[in-house]
Amino acid sequence: MKLHLDDTIAAIATAVGEGAIAVIRISGPASLEITDRVFRGKSPLAGAAPYTMHYGTVCAPDGSPVDQVIASVFRSPHSYTGEDVVELSCHGGLYLSQRVLQLILGSGARHAEPGEFTRRAFMNGKMDLAQAEAVSDMIRAGSEKARQASFDQLEGKLGDRVRTLRAAMMELCSLLEVDLDFSEEDLAVIAPEEIERRLEAIDRDLEAMISSFEHGKLAREGVEVVLVGKPNAGKSSIFNALLREERAIVTPLPGTTRDSLEESLTIGGVLFRVHDTAGLRKTVDLAETEGVKRSQAIMQHADILLDVIDATSPLDREEVAGWRRGIAASQHCLAVYNKIDLVEDKAATLLASEPESVVVSARTGQGMDNLRACLLAVVGGKEMESVPVGVTNSRHVASLMKAKEALHAALQSLKDGATNEFIAFDVRDAANHLAEITGEITSEEILNEIFGKFCIGK
Amino acid sequence: MKLHLDDTIAAIATAVGEGAIAVIRISGPASLEITDRVFRGKSPLAGAAPYTMHYGTVCAPDGSPVDQVIASVFRSPHSYTGEDVVELSCHGGLYLSQRVLQLILGSGARHAEPGEFTRRAFMNGKMDLAQAEAVSDMIRAGSEKARQASFDQLEGKLGDRVRTLRAAMMELCSLLEVDLDFSEEDLAVIAPEEIERRLEAIDRDLEAMISSFEHGKLAREGVEVVLVGKPNAGKSSIFNALLREERAIVTPLPGTTRDSLEESLTIGGVLFRVHDTAGLRKTVDLAETEGVKRSQAIMQHADILLDVIDATSPLDREEVAGWRRGIAASQHCLAVYNKIDLVEDKAATLLASEPESVVVSARTGQGMDNLRACLLAVVGGKEMESVPVGVTNSRHVASLMKAKEALHAALQSLKDGATNEFIAFDVRDAANHLAEITGEITSEEILNEIFGKFCIGK
Repeated sequence: MKLHLDDTIAAIATAVGEGAIAVIRISGPASLEITDRVFRGKSPLAGAAPYTMHYGTVCAPDGSPVDQVIASVFRSPHSYTGEDVVELSCHGGLYLSQRVLQLILGSGARHAEPGEFTRRAFMNGKMDLAQAEAVSDMIRAGSEKARQASFDQLEGKLGDRVRTLRAAMMELCSLLEVDLDFSEEDLAVIAPEEIERRLEAIDRDLEAMISSFEHGKLAREGVEVVLVGKPNAGKSSIFNALLREERAIVTPLPGTTRDSLEESLTIGGVLFRVHDTAGLRKTVDLAETEGVKRSQAIMQHADILLDVIDATSPLDREEVAGWRRGIAASQHCLAVYNKIDLVEDKAATLLASEPESVVVSARTGQGMDNLRACLLAVVGGKEMESVPVGVTNSRHVASLMKAKEALHAALQSLKDGATNEFIAFDVRDAANHLAEITGEITSEEILNEIFGKFCIGK
Repeated sequence: MKLHLDDTIAAIATAVGEGAIAVIRISGPASLEITDRVFRGKSPLAGAAPYTMHYGTVCAPDGSPVDQVIASVFRSPHSYTGEDVVELSCHGGLYLSQRVLQLILGSGARHAEPGEFTRRAFMNGKMDLAQAEAVSDMIRAGSEKARQASFDQLEGKLGDRVRTLRAAMMELCSLLEVDLDFSEEDLAVIAPEEIERRLEAIDRDLEAMISSFEHGKLAREGVEVVLVGKPNAGKSSIFNALLREERAIVTPLPGTTRDSLEESLTIGGVLFRVHDTAGLRKTVDLAETEGVKRSQAIMQHADILLDVIDATSPLDREEVAGWRRGIAASQHCLAVYNKIDLVEDKAATLLASEPESVVVSARTGQGMDNLRACLLAVVGGKEMESVPVGVTNSRHVASLMKAKEALHAALQSLKDGATNEFIAFDVRDAANHLAEITGEITSEEILNEIFGKFCIGK
């Protein structure tokens, strides 16, 4: 996409479909003038005060009325994009909203590219790049944690933290470079110990941000939980017991393949996608059929595996250890002993004391709250609360990791007794990577990639 | 639905899905107060001027921010419902918009029933019942004609026409009843000839409105066109030729089963749904398979049948008459002679002169414009222009027909020499049926049925 910041763009800003209202957003220097060509109200919008609404009729070029609308007027720079903006609320029909949009386009506006409104907001300094990306995350948020994480980013908290860290790097660079100027006079402005102390402080901050990513990612995308175990273990009963009590807040996820084997629920604001995989346990022995392959694929993408075991069957208990060999180091596995209400107290206590295990009864509901708490604990529900600003975007974490790499190079140079000039070079490199997050340093390609993923109208 | 006009209702007013913006509509006496409980802006909305917008943050009860929003304030009676209304524009996420709505509901609003905003607009005298119904038609309009028809109704033109007609009935009633008072004095206020003249004038108006319904219905719902004929007749070529040139304005119809055999196009603003039915012609002979049954079902619902005939094959031409016996009287049938470019001029002229026939060449495009014009002519495209206000709603036409029935009873009574009292009774009955259209006379049941079909948020 080539950038034209001087023309006026328009697009439907509400979801595609039928509703009471559809909103057509028009942004650019000529937005009021263009709208006035099709809008008949009490008086032209060109003279309207900012933040005011105006009832009127949108008309075709031949003067025939097309729809009754409310025109909302925003004046530069106090608008979403920072430009003059008009939002037309028309009746929310598919044909109708397209018809009104076509009239606006016919009057001189250009159809907006995907994400172009938000891109303009970024270009006009209304938000940094991380905030712009948060707009998209905010809209896609499927749970409370995801919403929280993107809201903080939308409010600019991530940008603030990145800018603070970058300022510390730039300050260190200045000191190193000042030192460089004075180096012939043998006056050390900054001692090597102080350089090291500062580099390590910055490194710790970078590391904290990077490590928040895994939680941030789970918050945004949800946690994949896969139930495995023999059918008679009561796996499906646990699936139902998990969902039934949380049904009221089952998240209506867009695009989720809602086949009979996957359901979503939220625990403590975190979205969990629970998969029931009938007969999966057998996969350890015979990996022939396509169905088994699919189950294995689901298992491979799991964040948490719940190994459901019939607590009343001693044989099943012994099988546990074997199949777990295949799971990845990043995957968590919990043994869930079901039908605990049918086991004598002494044996139950023994099972409950095993590490990484939970005892439940899907039938009576016993232990289900504990299971939920364990699921939340595995993804660090408690710790997530304490992370001040989580990183949820893989582009951001990539930049942070590059910054960390550059910083480590600086630390190595320091140890090797390199000149301050050398060290400053790496620190500046690290600072530049941070600037990519907020968009202070960016390229057309990066912007195209980011905003190209937005929907039209954003 | 029991009516509560004294509480405050809320619902998401935009289409379900992801968009840049979602709008939550809050209407009722406490709408500003309720919104203020969750909205943090520069100042409370309770003090805001009408038709103004306010930037702020929606917060959870614990004070934590949930989303950045624009609150639009409308003051009674100058709002959609006639009540105090707030519209919150939040980020258009599925989860997010639900979250904001839940906060509003938690602050004292009740979730709106389907169509309840529009129902309140009707109850508060902002629109008559026909206008309220037009809101729904407007949103569902899939073509320009459908939009036009519902817009006229939305603007109140149908209501005006109905009220004028009803006023004429009521005036006649008054005269008949005045006459009644004076009848003992033998002073005729209104002569029987004058009564008859007036009854017949009203009857003509009713008839005109009823007869506009068939066109109105086609305008709203689209015209079903079915291509029948042997495969070698070039049926699919005509299907493509019809669609290709109109592709730019193919209407994105919601809910249309877009299988490979059905496409929509608009001609002169009228929506046509064209069905290609491979092998349908054979159905006349062998009606055994399920596939043939489906084709016959499609044919039965056709408004227009295009019988495509290979003009170069004399045998095919002779087959035409036979199969048409099965079609209904309300269905139009056009013979479409294809491959006319391969037929010698004299024979072509002969075919073109046949009644209800068109000669075309799908390959060269010859005659295709004429075919389109013929399709439009069959549904009275020209006449539709001249119908001042069409009736598009089957409820309205039912009321009109009941009114007509009552009026005919009045005419019959007149002929039978009944008393004016008797005649007035029937005229009043007719007037009451008209009042059902605009909702001046209505019942809870009728309102429930009408608004129950609306979506939530309207």
